[in-house]
Amino acid sequence: MGAPDQPGLDALRRGVDAALERALPPESQWPTRVHAAMRYSVFAGGKRIRPLLCLAAAQAVAGETGRERAMPFACAVELIHTFSLIHDDLPAMDDDDLRRGRPTCHKAFDEATAILAGDALQTRAFEIIIGAPVAAGAPLAVLEGLAILAQACGTAGLIGGQIDDLKFEGVPATPDDLERIHRTKTGALIVATVLGGGVLAGASADQKAALKAYAEPIGLAFQIVDDILDVSADAAALGKTPGKDAKAGKATWVSLHGVEASKRRAEELHDEAVAALHAFGDEAFLLRDLASRIIHRAS
Amino acid sequence: MGAPDQPGLDALRRGVDAALERALPPESQWPTRVHAAMRYSVFAGGKRIRPLLCLAAAQAVAGETGRERAMPFACAVELIHTFSLIHDDLPAMDDDDLRRGRPTCHKAFDEATAILAGDALQTRAFEIIIGAPVAAGAPLAVLEGLAILAQACGTAGLIGGQIDDLKFEGVPATPDDLERIHRTKTGALIVATVLGGGVLAGASADQKAALKAYAEPIGLAFQIVDDILDVSADAAALGKTPGKDAKAGKATWVSLHGVEASKRRAEELHDEAVAALHAFGDEAFLLRDLASRIIHRAS
Repeated sequence: MGAPDQPGLDALRRGVDAALERALPPESQWPTRVHAAMRYSVFAGGKRIRPLLCLAAAQAVAGETGRERAMPFACAVELIHTFSLIHDDLPAMDDDDLRRGRPTCHKAFDEATAILAGDALQTRAFEIIIGAPVAAGAPLAVLEGLAILAQACGTAGLIGGQIDDLKFEGVPATPDDLERIHRTKTGALIVATVLGGGVLAGASADQKAALKAYAEPIGLAFQIVDDILDVSADAAALGKTPGKDAKAGKATWVSLHGVEASKRRAEELHDEAVAALHAFGDEAFLLRDLASRIIHRAS
Repeated sequence: MGAPDQPGLDALRRGVDAALERALPPESQWPTRVHAAMRYSVFAGGKRIRPLLCLAAAQAVAGETGRERAMPFACAVELIHTFSLIHDDLPAMDDDDLRRGRPTCHKAFDEATAILAGDALQTRAFEIIIGAPVAAGAPLAVLEGLAILAQACGTAGLIGGQIDDLKFEGVPATPDDLERIHRTKTGALIVATVLGGGVLAGASADQKAALKAYAEPIGLAFQIVDDILDVSADAAALGKTPGKDAKAGKATWVSLHGVEASKRRAEELHDEAVAALHAFGDEAFLLRDLASRIIHRAS
């Protein structure tokens, strides 16, 4: 989809990787070990779904100019996502040895370094938004974007979701519990990346509402597909041990609703998300493309 | 010191505690366990030296108005300081059981909760500056303050200092190593709190330079006095086990230079800091008072 002169997702992904490269201090710079650990986890073959959603939203609002203004935010969200993975993998939390087919950060380095690398990625995420050239030109939009990101990271978002996720390990969770965990642990950052991309690109109130109406179902669909892949994909495609959630006694969408109902729900959420994009017209092509890829991904 | 109608440090400290109370979600709010852990560590009897330095700098620049504008920043710095203590105390880091005479956060709760409470305090620190009423009125000053804080928290500041501190446990550190650890681990946040307070209060370039010239020696003096107290104070006054650094084989100012030379150096740094305040006149009375208290404190 999209006009021939429009960028595809692959080109945008390369742009995100290049911007992330510039956003992180070099390994050669003191303190080298923490910088190495930050880079190890950020450049671990992530699909950059969140930055792409951010840029896609900015594209829908203001085309190429929008994408340029949103790039620091797109990178910041990926750093926040990486920070949360590093800390969630720690022995005191989910105690995971593998992530994307490679040793987790605390396995490749050590626990102290992994804790500090996570901390530093959170700091750096805020710092690159604060320090972007766009900040001086549109300070109120930048402050609005920062507020959206902070809200998604905090106890009402990522952190609340993670503590709830730990709480329900081996304890029966109701469908309501699980939906709250998904909404906070995964959904909040996905909504923030879409909304923040729009805000940095100068979205109107109506556009922000439309982006939120797209992002909320997409965030939930993303996690439902994760739960389906956990029982159906093989380890090589997934880059982690499949069936791990089921073995840990964690409730998943599939364990509560079954595979078929989960697939149907993901499709419904996809349709709901895409319907919210109507007012953007063709400029929402990247958001439509991503919605489809998120539902139909194999890993 | 100060005119009779000026606030004393005790009144300001009560104001900081009240503002911190408002800055943190209530324990009754989901996720309750993380909120309880955040409050446990923030309200653990800290002396609020960093927030007071922030407000004192704002007072020097713009009196009461300055202090009001700087209050969110003052609280944010205390949250960052608390976050760094919680993570530094973890078993994978300094492995401390006691902090200010009470069990450390991971002892009172558990490691996962302590990691997440620290993460959440960092997020909340940025969030309260971003969301303060002052942000909309003076967005560029707020962004400048945020940049100063992020720089102090990051790998060039707190985080770099902590990883170096771990590295030199049981390994001989040179005086240069130690000065870098002190400058990053303790000094960076002290400089940021003074400078940020001034920036939020509307400091000129000359005023910012003067505040930095005050804060850098004060930051180093603060740590030297800490090292002196580690070998001379008793456990009750200190709220932690004295002599711990020496036992851990950590280089301290005292182990490298001796007690008497350390005391002299702290006095010199005090005088240097106070001399930098000349241009502020009487409005710098709180900064002078704090300099004296930092050097002469018994705990």
